[in-house]
Amino acid sequence: MSTHHSSVSRPVVAYPEHRLSLAGMLTLARELYGHARHFRAIERMISNTQIAERRFALPLEQIGKQAGLAERTRLYMEHARPLARGVIEDALNEAALMPADIDLIITSSCTSFVMPSLDAYLINDLGFPPTTRRLPIAQLGCVAGVSALLMANDYCRAYPEARVLVVAVELSSLCFFPEHDDLTSAVCASIFGDGAMACVVSGAAHDGSGLRLGEGMSYTMPDSEHYIRYEVGDGGFHLTLDRGVMHSIPKIAPTIQDFVRSRGVEALDFVVAHTGGRRILDGIVSSLGIDERLVGQSRASLREVGNTASVSVFDVLRRAFDNERPELVERPNHGIVVAFGPGFTMALLEATWA
Amino acid sequence: MSTHHSSVSRPVVAYPEHRLSLAGMLTLARELYGHARHFRAIERMISNTQIAERRFALPLEQIGKQAGLAERTRLYMEHARPLARGVIEDALNEAALMPADIDLIITSSCTSFVMPSLDAYLINDLGFPPTTRRLPIAQLGCVAGVSALLMANDYCRAYPEARVLVVAVELSSLCFFPEHDDLTSAVCASIFGDGAMACVVSGAAHDGSGLRLGEGMSYTMPDSEHYIRYEVGDGGFHLTLDRGVMHSIPKIAPTIQDFVRSRGVEALDFVVAHTGGRRILDGIVSSLGIDERLVGQSRASLREVGNTASVSVFDVLRRAFDNERPELVERPNHGIVVAFGPGFTMALLEATWA
Repeated sequence: MSTHHSSVSRPVVAYPEHRLSLAGMLTLARELYGHARHFRAIERMISNTQIAERRFALPLEQIGKQAGLAERTRLYMEHARPLARGVIEDALNEAALMPADIDLIITSSCTSFVMPSLDAYLINDLGFPPTTRRLPIAQLGCVAGVSALLMANDYCRAYPEARVLVVAVELSSLCFFPEHDDLTSAVCASIFGDGAMACVVSGAAHDGSGLRLGEGMSYTMPDSEHYIRYEVGDGGFHLTLDRGVMHSIPKIAPTIQDFVRSRGVEALDFVVAHTGGRRILDGIVSSLGIDERLVGQSRASLREVGNTASVSVFDVLRRAFDNERPELVERPNHGIVVAFGPGFTMALLEATWA
Repeated sequence: MSTHHSSVSRPVVAYPEHRLSLAGMLTLARELYGHARHFRAIERMISNTQIAERRFALPLEQIGKQAGLAERTRLYMEHARPLARGVIEDALNEAALMPADIDLIITSSCTSFVMPSLDAYLINDLGFPPTTRRLPIAQLGCVAGVSALLMANDYCRAYPEARVLVVAVELSSLCFFPEHDDLTSAVCASIFGDGAMACVVSGAAHDGSGLRLGEGMSYTMPDSEHYIRYEVGDGGFHLTLDRGVMHSIPKIAPTIQDFVRSRGVEALDFVVAHTGGRRILDGIVSSLGIDERLVGQSRASLREVGNTASVSVFDVLRRAFDNERPELVERPNHGIVVAFGPGFTMALLEATWA
């Protein structure tokens, strides 16, 4: 990658206090789905998630017990606001920046719908200047983290002096409906977790340390709107998955390979990939023909916190900062940041450690 | 304005078939609110809206009769999708562009929450390439139209060859709850209407005819999150207004004046202002100390279609293209495009007719 348009600081992540282990999930599954004809399949599927633990904002016994969307929305504001506040404070501290140094805040959160958006409250909570630009993203799901990076990167291309704060907050536990006991609802109940993240994307006029971002793209797979979809009901937002999503990675892999080649890169040195689920990561390894080691940080993230929607890719990036960057930073290194979400949509950026 | 970063084509707007006149609204108000102690105040307020007619996607007798959010969401997809499709086709035709010429689609719609977002469906409906970038905005309400222009303008600053399709679709009639008979709920029921809009924002590498956009800004008024807010309930999204919103324009006017002066402009030649309501437009005239004639297109838009949320400012812009541009284009002319929405947030761009 010859030029970069922005660089990303090490993401700060936070996970709420309530923990659910794999053993706990298997016990819970028996309660929730023990009556179902396909319970054995659910049990097997949970054992195969490779998720050891997930974290939730609600005490386990309250998850899925909300009366409707009003209550879920109230709980979202109660928990998401302090969670986001904490990661923003820490991310600014780590970057030695003040709220006034930030030009634009991009906030991604698909697990609730509020207006004004969370960022309007956070501006007041944290003393950002009223002129700070705001872009809330609610409808891009798991791909929103990389979509936010794409937009932050474009903004920095327009304004090389800019600093963009990227925030992701997901309370997946507020989108859980125990009354749905079909297999894909059980899959969702078994993989998604809660979390929050903040990082700073800085234009090329700044020092350029961290992960440098170059060109990017997105790809919406034709006629795939049903792959990952919310059923918006009176009770809230119920995620549904189509079997098609299982075969999405082999279909989309040539687009990734074409992009990488078009950037003059022969072989990838690293991949910062949204965790999705075990089969998504298996698909990345086999369809891109890359070494298993390149999704090592994604595997670790999935194991330790599950799939936290738009937060996930940043949890992987944080691990890459700590574990991969030290080895890669001294030599030419070419990688990608990639996520997948509803649409079915992929967002992708070329990246280099500096 | 010395330089511009993008130019906007004449917006194409569409309004659904069902019409509600002022007389019709007064009759309906008697049915809905006749029992209320403050009915005289409601009646007087409706007579003073200066709205002669509004247009709705649903037959009048079905408005507010939905069982809950699931039904409202189903109706949104049924009506918003063809409405958006129509304006996009017409906007591309008018600009003599093909779907493949568009780099980014920014879609604003606050009157429903769906995932995948409407743009994912429209990409397939209209044959846009899978690599078309997408940015759906759901949480910025009435300010989202100008927020979308700000982002389109920044994108063109980064990529001067770019073409951005801006789309706005609002079905305000799906956010109507007759069970709320307080005064501010009656205000909302009396001013909001349905509509859709599409226009093309082109980078400076293109011909630059139409409305040229220069610098822009946004301003989130401190501690004003309660001014314009959705109560997200099991039934849907119920808009609430605080009395504070009535005094927002005088408070925010100095920020507009500072911005205009900072751009080296002595006096505004035109203003493309979100309609808001009568008092918002009165406030713009008195607080900015401008001639009433400068909000003439906003008054006409309010009178003919009401406040259509993020569509409104584009309806005003379309009227300005037809009625003001011919006179202004031959001489130096300085104006602004401005909207207000939840937060309380203003978005603002300097503009020149070319």
